[in-house]
Amino acid sequence: MHRPLPKVFGFDVFGTVVDWRAGVIRDVTQFLADAGHGAIDPAQFADAWRLQYLTAMAAYSASGRGFVTLDILHYEMLEDTLRRFGLEPASLDPQAIRDLNRAWHRLDPWPDAVAGIERLRTRYPVVTLTNGNIQMMLNMARRSGLQWDALLGAEVTRAYKPMPEAYLRTAEMLGLAPQELCLVASHHADLAAARACGLATAFIARPLEFGGLPAPDASASQNWDWACQGIDELAEIMVL
Amino acid sequence: MHRPLPKVFGFDVFGTVVDWRAGVIRDVTQFLADAGHGAIDPAQFADAWRLQYLTAMAAYSASGRGFVTLDILHYEMLEDTLRRFGLEPASLDPQAIRDLNRAWHRLDPWPDAVAGIERLRTRYPVVTLTNGNIQMMLNMARRSGLQWDALLGAEVTRAYKPMPEAYLRTAEMLGLAPQELCLVASHHADLAAARACGLATAFIARPLEFGGLPAPDASASQNWDWACQGIDELAEIMVL
Repeated sequence: MHRPLPKVFGFDVFGTVVDWRAGVIRDVTQFLADAGHGAIDPAQFADAWRLQYLTAMAAYSASGRGFVTLDILHYEMLEDTLRRFGLEPASLDPQAIRDLNRAWHRLDPWPDAVAGIERLRTRYPVVTLTNGNIQMMLNMARRSGLQWDALLGAEVTRAYKPMPEAYLRTAEMLGLAPQELCLVASHHADLAAARACGLATAFIARPLEFGGLPAPDASASQNWDWACQGIDELAEIMVL
Repeated sequence: MHRPLPKVFGFDVFGTVVDWRAGVIRDVTQFLADAGHGAIDPAQFADAWRLQYLTAMAAYSASGRGFVTLDILHYEMLEDTLRRFGLEPASLDPQAIRDLNRAWHRLDPWPDAVAGIERLRTRYPVVTLTNGNIQMMLNMARRSGLQWDALLGAEVTRAYKPMPEAYLRTAEMLGLAPQELCLVASHHADLAAARACGLATAFIARPLEFGGLPAPDASASQNWDWACQGIDELAEIMVL
């Protein structure tokens, strides 16, 4: 028995809509080759960079540091990741590091994403509900043909998921009660935080997000309001 | 001699993209008829409501009041306008007043707007740079077929135009130097404030915005970087 249909869908983006790992590996490969460090495994490097994100968010929320964009956090994490692989950032081309940091603006959507979101938008407003900043989302959308009704998320609410304010302020800005907003995400931890705030939840399976390995939050799985194999399947259910 | 082409266009919306006056008159007419006050001139009422906005923004900026959305400010201005026309809000149907306040979500675009913005977007990111809040912009866009790359403005920057932060924070979020962002507006005062911040400026003539009467800020006219009779003409210039 499903709950009532949502009024607006808010999408997590990294992993749910775009394949961050393939895109980051692609750009890391080029960066390492150009820098003469082709012996480093770009997949390990990409995974280490992303893992920093997953851990840094908790530290960031606890730090009381004023809001900074994900672009800035990614850059700091990239410097740490470079050092972890034995590369001192100061010894590398600063423009090349800045350009690599923008790999997150150049990610490709999963094959079902553009058409699935387009179909969902024939009936519902569909917005981002992402920790990515606006410029990142805008560049990604223009590059890939993704089209949103609004780019919402951490830069607008000034709160990163999974902080409750990230979900609740987004619903409030849209004039919605929490249960009228449905978070669409491939991450159980994100969905669990949204559910705790009263949002509706739709899970999209992305078995390849971590290169075929289990997701770090697999143990947080719950019986979500909807669970689909792709965004096209979610649209099929919602656009009656 | 024009300056270099902008990288992103930020649009004022009320007056520049949508015909606020016709839309508000339409809904005021219905409201007054339903309330049994059909003798009040809806055009005078609509103009009085809008004039409140133009004056209230200055008072708001000077007040030090924390950020509230334009929907809330519009509601307060609507109560004042009702009283000015001899109608005590408490004597009227509260739901009808709330619904009338959402007239600003239901405004129709000028005939050149949807296609002009669509054409501009084939080459440039095009965002709102509006004092309207996100929900208002989202509802207006979905109703009218307007499509933006992002809904930016006061609710995102937490500053109302013509405060400098409204323009400068928008450019910063987009990763732009001020001169790379072009404000498109039918209001000289808005363009003057944007120019003072270093933004590029494009004027769109909307001779019918005030029902054919001169604009309140006509005396603030300057030699803007571009001046067009419609958004279609701007797109013609910019999409080479």
